[in-house]
Amino acid sequence: MPHSPDELRPLVENYLEGLELWPALHGQAESVRYSIVVGGKRVRPVICLATAEAAGAEPEDALAAGCALELVHTFSLVHDDLPALDDDEERRGQPSTWKRFGEAAGILAGDALLAEAFRLATSYETTHVARELAEATLGMIGGQYLDITGTAPDEPTLHKLKTGCLFGAAVGLALWVARVPEAEQAAWRAFGDELGLLFQIVDDILDGDGYVATHGVDGARRLADEAAERARERLAAVAADTSVLREIVDGLAVRTA
Amino acid sequence: MPHSPDELRPLVENYLEGLELWPALHGQAESVRYSIVVGGKRVRPVICLATAEAAGAEPEDALAAGCALELVHTFSLVHDDLPALDDDEERRGQPSTWKRFGEAAGILAGDALLAEAFRLATSYETTHVARELAEATLGMIGGQYLDITGTAPDEPTLHKLKTGCLFGAAVGLALWVARVPEAEQAAWRAFGDELGLLFQIVDDILDGDGYVATHGVDGARRLADEAAERARERLAAVAADTSVLREIVDGLAVRTA
Repeated sequence: MPHSPDELRPLVENYLEGLELWPALHGQAESVRYSIVVGGKRVRPVICLATAEAAGAEPEDALAAGCALELVHTFSLVHDDLPALDDDEERRGQPSTWKRFGEAAGILAGDALLAEAFRLATSYETTHVARELAEATLGMIGGQYLDITGTAPDEPTLHKLKTGCLFGAAVGLALWVARVPEAEQAAWRAFGDELGLLFQIVDDILDGDGYVATHGVDGARRLADEAAERARERLAAVAADTSVLREIVDGLAVRTA
Repeated sequence: MPHSPDELRPLVENYLEGLELWPALHGQAESVRYSIVVGGKRVRPVICLATAEAAGAEPEDALAAGCALELVHTFSLVHDDLPALDDDEERRGQPSTWKRFGEAAGILAGDALLAEAFRLATSYETTHVARELAEATLGMIGGQYLDITGTAPDEPTLHKLKTGCLFGAAVGLALWVARVPEAEQAAWRAFGDELGLLFQIVDDILDGDGYVATHGVDGARRLADEAAERARERLAAVAADTSVLREIVDGLAVRTA
């Protein structure tokens, strides 16, 4: 029996809680740890672990990759919250990192999270894990730039970068961990592409912005259902037990938080 | 005949100028490129190439590693210049990145430089290059934190982190590129450790701060000469033609800019 999302999530939480930050970070480690434990649903690492297991690896083997991805996601939130960007003083009901530790330490905390992410990603023998993480990070930053400058050509391009890159990497990193040959990765990756879109549309439905602003609630709901359906179809095309990933899709489609 | 520093520097400049940034960066690429070409002496990549050649590789083989290091150095300058940190409006006679592109884009430019650095570092078959780069980056960030918070236990600790980590990596990355077995790296690395200190003390002599403030001009000069002498001794202990690295030490000791 493959592990359920509810079984995978504690693996991720334990790994992140026990993560030994690089000692040379000295006092900067406090703000890094604060940013990590402030939490979240750990959606990306759970997808990474579930994909790795579906592809034949032990979920534990994907912990470093999945948590590297979570650190990149956390880095992006820490820098997004800065006064020069979104100027958010709170994150998940707690003071945001810069609000708690000051702006300079907030900038450095994001930097350290990104570097820690690559330290984790380079714990694998193959460089593919760290390379795909770097590419996904660059795509996310490119999307962030289009967003703050209002220069995105269209909504799908923006979200494919801002959200899609890390969701795609959640699947992609797991494929490298599970040593899926490159020639056999396409079907899996097609699934990953739909996941980010699904997550983003439902996010907008919950926040009442983005796709809801452009398509209305019903229109956004329909787009989300279509993305979920495509994700299920992509999964059906993969020659493996993808039941847990299907469960994740179903959960993302109806989530209320 | 190994290549002289003056022959290696153009290799670095050409590589950086021709560097194809990741396409998904979109418009953010402009500020990244601006930050890179604003220049500098390319000390770290030149040391990296010279070390790689002394250790038996082609200098060209070390270009991706050396330039990854230069991008990490550039990232650190771009973020250091931000208003929340040093608040510098100029860098090498040009507007600093945030001053030219705005604070938000300045933060993202630094982020993108760091991610690009890891993309370059993962172009090698071994993950050692990217892993050592991540560790050096974390050390540098730790030093930066000690600096802005005034919590460094002493001056050597601070500079070993802030400057020493990247100079040590200039040597260390080259050893991985040249496939020097880990058991034979110690003598080389002992040399790298002295380089950063030498660079920092001379920097302080030129700027009239740091080691000059604590040791006076003559005292700082003596410390620099001692560091240079130790670097030469370390080189003499390496079983290779290290004449170019010796030339670099001599140049760093007497540099006036």
